[in-house]
Amino acid sequence: MNPLKNDRFLRALLKEPVDLTPVWMMRQAGRYLPEYRATRARAGSFMELCRSPELACEVTLQPLERFPLDAAILFSDILTVPDAMGLGLYFAQGEGPRFERPVQSEADIDRLPIPDPESELGYVMDAVRLIRRELQGRVPLIGFSGSPWTLATYMVEGGSSKEYARVKGMLYDRPDLMHRLLDKTAQAVTAYLNAQIAAGAQAVQIFDTWGGILTPRDYREFSLRYMARIIEGLTREAEGRRVPVILFTKGGGAWLEDMAETGADALGLDWTIDIGEARRRVGDKVALQGNMDPCVLYASPERIQREVADILAAYGRGSGHVFNLGHGIHPGVDPEHAAAFIDAVHQLSRPYHRD
Amino acid sequence: MNPLKNDRFLRALLKEPVDLTPVWMMRQAGRYLPEYRATRARAGSFMELCRSPELACEVTLQPLERFPLDAAILFSDILTVPDAMGLGLYFAQGEGPRFERPVQSEADIDRLPIPDPESELGYVMDAVRLIRRELQGRVPLIGFSGSPWTLATYMVEGGSSKEYARVKGMLYDRPDLMHRLLDKTAQAVTAYLNAQIAAGAQAVQIFDTWGGILTPRDYREFSLRYMARIIEGLTREAEGRRVPVILFTKGGGAWLEDMAETGADALGLDWTIDIGEARRRVGDKVALQGNMDPCVLYASPERIQREVADILAAYGRGSGHVFNLGHGIHPGVDPEHAAAFIDAVHQLSRPYHRD
Repeated sequence: MNPLKNDRFLRALLKEPVDLTPVWMMRQAGRYLPEYRATRARAGSFMELCRSPELACEVTLQPLERFPLDAAILFSDILTVPDAMGLGLYFAQGEGPRFERPVQSEADIDRLPIPDPESELGYVMDAVRLIRRELQGRVPLIGFSGSPWTLATYMVEGGSSKEYARVKGMLYDRPDLMHRLLDKTAQAVTAYLNAQIAAGAQAVQIFDTWGGILTPRDYREFSLRYMARIIEGLTREAEGRRVPVILFTKGGGAWLEDMAETGADALGLDWTIDIGEARRRVGDKVALQGNMDPCVLYASPERIQREVADILAAYGRGSGHVFNLGHGIHPGVDPEHAAAFIDAVHQLSRPYHRD
Repeated sequence: MNPLKNDRFLRALLKEPVDLTPVWMMRQAGRYLPEYRATRARAGSFMELCRSPELACEVTLQPLERFPLDAAILFSDILTVPDAMGLGLYFAQGEGPRFERPVQSEADIDRLPIPDPESELGYVMDAVRLIRRELQGRVPLIGFSGSPWTLATYMVEGGSSKEYARVKGMLYDRPDLMHRLLDKTAQAVTAYLNAQIAAGAQAVQIFDTWGGILTPRDYREFSLRYMARIIEGLTREAEGRRVPVILFTKGGGAWLEDMAETGADALGLDWTIDIGEARRRVGDKVALQGNMDPCVLYASPERIQREVADILAAYGRGSGHVFNLGHGIHPGVDPEHAAAFIDAVHQLSRPYHRD
């Protein structure tokens, strides 16, 4: 493997000194880039794009050609694991992800296999290996998975949901079944992330997109607990370096102290919390990633710079901050605004890292 | 006017002693009730239902015929005010609310009138008067409005939104325009709520459904500030009694201390915060309303009772708690489950109010 030329991202996650604040964007390989839309059109369908290591590698690298990002993130879908568990993922026109065989009964849960990632999710591991090769050590590669609770919402609902009637019905009425489902899913996710690390992922992020729809009690019992179990089971060193874990619960600002107890190296923040307050609450224990409102990228470059300046000032001096958006970049954003954002982070953060 | 036979709801909002914890449900007049669906079908359209004082009165009273609720809430839509400001509200089949003429420019904002509620929203005031007459003092009637920020999201986006690209684009790039829009909307809402109070509303709730999508700084500047201004302008006494104000920001759990400074009598809570923790933070200053996850109503009556018991125990002894869901009741809920919920609150709360 090539030695890393830019390891700011990994260093910041471990609170080691850096020259400036590293930055990447959730969904940086995505629809806001015309070159992504071109590859997507060539692939035929979103699933074909995910399943082709060459095309997944191509779109993973696209934003790095445009912007001086400090990390690459594997292009994939969060629902590859339930798909490999036999649920039959497909994307209906304009409807988002759907499962052909959602989890509806005790028997469905008992029947779920724990997939072997190298054979059943081999296309993802091939993509990781190919991306690492193509990156040639420019920046680290982030692997990822959805959290067990987040995956379970799709598995039980059969797709996206507004009310979460079925999955919460199960949680409230049959917590025993919900725990069995989450336990299996957590085992599958642990194996999946470890396989990504073995294939070359240098950090991993757990996306808990729907943890924030739970009560504080249920968040701890049905989401956080399984993420902690995954983290416990992860390979934490590879190629002679620590493999940091980032935990991101959207809407989890109230629960940062609990999240910091999981053994995660860093917590992802959405924009509904002040990052300075978050640092005061948990900054000694973990690094922080975030947290600009992705909608700021609709505003002018000058406004974007001001927002970046405010967030840098709120975090304050020293390492332990990876700049990011508080959620994925929106498809309607002008790539020039993304460029202004990334440049602003690099330029404005230097003074915070001088002795 | 008839003297109030059941004033538990008003007393709890003012932290005066009660015999048991009062309860009502957001959207209690709604699609989960077959009798509502029948009236709605008879009305022809949702807008006809809102615009007919007789039909609005009929659906307002329906849940009170079924359940021993401690308050009635005016049946109306939160977008009546922008409609009266000339935006042209309509409901497209299966699409939610839309405006024919969304606010897109400085000129659009300058042109917005501040409607006279008695003439331009007379159908709402007629409904309030009719409901009060029909209630015959059984329980108090709650009036309501959307918050200026929440209304502005629909006014600028032209309807519901997922990303809020336009309204946040305006907020970030043209805060001056956003403030002018919010200022006018706050004036219109103040007049609207005061007219409801004059017509007979005995408490009012401000629904800040979308305050929680803002950063903490922008929440204070663009949502909370205008709600505080409205509260300052409200008639606080009518018929010899205080008219309590309830402030409900969905996702506002982190900002309760700031919300308690507005002069509101009570804060509405969604289910992502523990009500015991909320009480410790602000309980001396304001009453609390909430906060069961509406999805619990999909579970069995036994499970619903356990959840009610947990929330009552978390709040603890004494007055100052109005039981409610953390958001509107979902259309798919079995009315028998709503009945079990309401009975559980009344039965299980008595011990918390004994000396």
